Amino acid sequence: MKLDSTPKQDGFYMPSELSEHKCTYLLWPERPDNWRGGAKPAQEAFRNVVEAIAKYEPVVLGVNQSQYAHVLGMNMENVSVVEISNNDSWIRDTGATMVVNDKGEMRAVDWEFNGYGGLYNGIYFPWDLDDLIASKMAAIEKVDRYRADGFVLEGGSVHSDGEGTLLVTEETLLDKGRNPELTKEEIENKLLEYCGAEKVLWIPRGIYMDQDTNGHVDNICQFVAPGKVVLAWEDNENDPQHERSKEAFDYLSGETDAKGRKLEIYKMHVPNVVTITKEESEGVDVVEGTFPRNEGDRLPASYVNYYNCNGAVILPIFGDDEHDEAAIRLLQELLPDRQIEPIYAREILLGGGNIHCITQQVPKA
Amino acid sequence: MKLDSTPKQDGFYMPSELSEHKCTYLLWPERPDNWRGGAKPAQEAFRNVVEAIAKYEPVVLGVNQSQYAHVLGMNMENVSVVEISNNDSWIRDTGATMVVNDKGEMRAVDWEFNGYGGLYNGIYFPWDLDDLIASKMAAIEKVDRYRADGFVLEGGSVHSDGEGTLLVTEETLLDKGRNPELTKEEIENKLLEYCGAEKVLWIPRGIYMDQDTNGHVDNICQFVAPGKVVLAWEDNENDPQHERSKEAFDYLSGETDAKGRKLEIYKMHVPNVVTITKEESEGVDVVEGTFPRNEGDRLPASYVNYYNCNGAVILPIFGDDEHDEAAIRLLQELLPDRQIEPIYAREILLGGGNIHCITQQVPKA
Repeated sequence: MKLDSTPKQDGFYMPSELSEHKCTYLLWPERPDNWRGGAKPAQEAFRNVVEAIAKYEPVVLGVNQSQYAHVLGMNMENVSVVEISNNDSWIRDTGATMVVNDKGEMRAVDWEFNGYGGLYNGIYFPWDLDDLIASKMAAIEKVDRYRADGFVLEGGSVHSDGEGTLLVTEETLLDKGRNPELTKEEIENKLLEYCGAEKVLWIPRGIYMDQDTNGHVDNICQFVAPGKVVLAWEDNENDPQHERSKEAFDYLSGETDAKGRKLEIYKMHVPNVVTITKEESEGVDVVEGTFPRNEGDRLPASYVNYYNCNGAVILPIFGDDEHDEAAIRLLQELLPDRQIEPIYAREILLGGGNIHCITQQVPKA
Repeated sequence: MKLDSTPKQDGFYMPSELSEHKCTYLLWPERPDNWRGGAKPAQEAFRNVVEAIAKYEPVVLGVNQSQYAHVLGMNMENVSVVEISNNDSWIRDTGATMVVNDKGEMRAVDWEFNGYGGLYNGIYFPWDLDDLIASKMAAIEKVDRYRADGFVLEGGSVHSDGEGTLLVTEETLLDKGRNPELTKEEIENKLLEYCGAEKVLWIPRGIYMDQDTNGHVDNICQFVAPGKVVLAWEDNENDPQHERSKEAFDYLSGETDAKGRKLEIYKMHVPNVVTITKEESEGVDVVEGTFPRNEGDRLPASYVNYYNCNGAVILPIFGDDEHDEAAIRLLQELLPDRQIEPIYAREILLGGGNIHCITQQVPKA
């Protein structure tokens, strides 16, 4: 059922992604105006992610009817293939944010979704199917649902440490395409109500050229524990990413979290610059109203866009040995109890996001 | 996952509908070439059934995307609205038959479905979406699935007492539109394998004019306990139903079940003859390839097409006071621990079936 109260009012909160999961949801990529080659290369990459996660926890894979029989026929172990009509496959942004309470109950938060900026600066049209994904996920999990009426948010624009602290970027949350009628304070209050949290940390900007999402936090910064974050970093002072990362570092260094802790910040160097090739660009259908993928465009590549499942980290790598290995090493040090599962993820990046963007956890309540 | 063995091989069996349920599935009616008035009157009747069941156990309601937002907006208590594309709404026939074992595990049986007779005598075309419903139900319930490849069956054509005995009709199971290449013995063996049972009781024919289903057993006979059945009955020897009911009575009287018990047979008189009115007929879109609903056609009305949910019986009634009341009284005597919930169900009957046909239980494993 749809509830009219808020999670905070009812004693529910958004747990950390690092806490135990019941399962992980993904959506199957399909739209040929975003994914090159009729989405076939992306489907292969998504399948690698699905199968990597399914080694550690059950996966629920949502598929449009048009691809249903095909995906069902793959008969993947520990994967349930459900029907969820979608406009695109970013379930981090369109799926339900699950919240839990101390009695072991779970509910869903269903944010308003408007295609990353609506008619102002959204990246595709329409987004009607995507705005129903959270309700379908809640229905499959058979949990009640809070609909955040009048508040536009993508799940990838907020991280929770599960202990009262949220991480966001001003670049996304104050973007004119989301909630132009709300003040920063009103946005902060909505976040705290629906995530059941106490404090919001506002990183100024996300990754350079993260134009699809206007700089989602999940591409630049992520908790490795309460009070500890990894931050996408660029040493080269001449690269525009340097200034963004330095700005975030300086901001976070001067802040404390909801529990009054100073943050430990671990720098995670980004890969060498990744740009779209001619062949990659030409493989995408050109449709007016969908964000273009042009030859030579720089992509917002970042290792921080990894996903924590039970006992593992599913990490995007880019065929950049030096930085790939440094990212693997850093995460293994920070998360010694987790298996690091690197997956070559250029195809996912070509569509505008990465592994964190295409996954959505359901916590174990 | 899809399994290649059979339930019987793996120690699974189909429990009685009378055993405890986890939830009930229904599908939302929509096709205007079967349901008059754009399916709006049928939707109201289905909603009455959904809400009646939801008083007793959780309901999962599968809806085509086209009606999803509308149905979600009803915000019905104890009802999860999921997306399940369908050609029509007879989930008894198209949904998974759930099987359980003694360790508390559950799996799904996914029968082949061909629109009640395929190109030979099926009642609509195509039926591709309906043949995927069982896999989607298994995915939502997150259980493994047996696909009965090469064996066409509708769930409404078999009842199980949960103790080794199945009830079917020859009229449906030996119909040339289902498995014309299989002998009666081969069909019996398939049934026993996939339902994990020991004995099949073959009632010759179903309800008179049950042309949609070729005489499904769930419209003429149902277990009220192992060893006890209700049988649709007609006293009037001049009515063609009398001969069919008498034939079934005589057959069942001479049989024993898998446990060697003789059957107790309770006669449940059918309502007065129900025929399609001019207005009802004219409200249905005429489409070649879909079974027509003509003015004056006799409908296969029967009280036996009721549904057992936890603690209740959802019983179709027809505005025929004498027979409605007799049916209620009989069921209350036979099932004294269950609440009888009569629902006026003419609209469901107009589409070709009744309450049992539009429900599918998921047992508590």
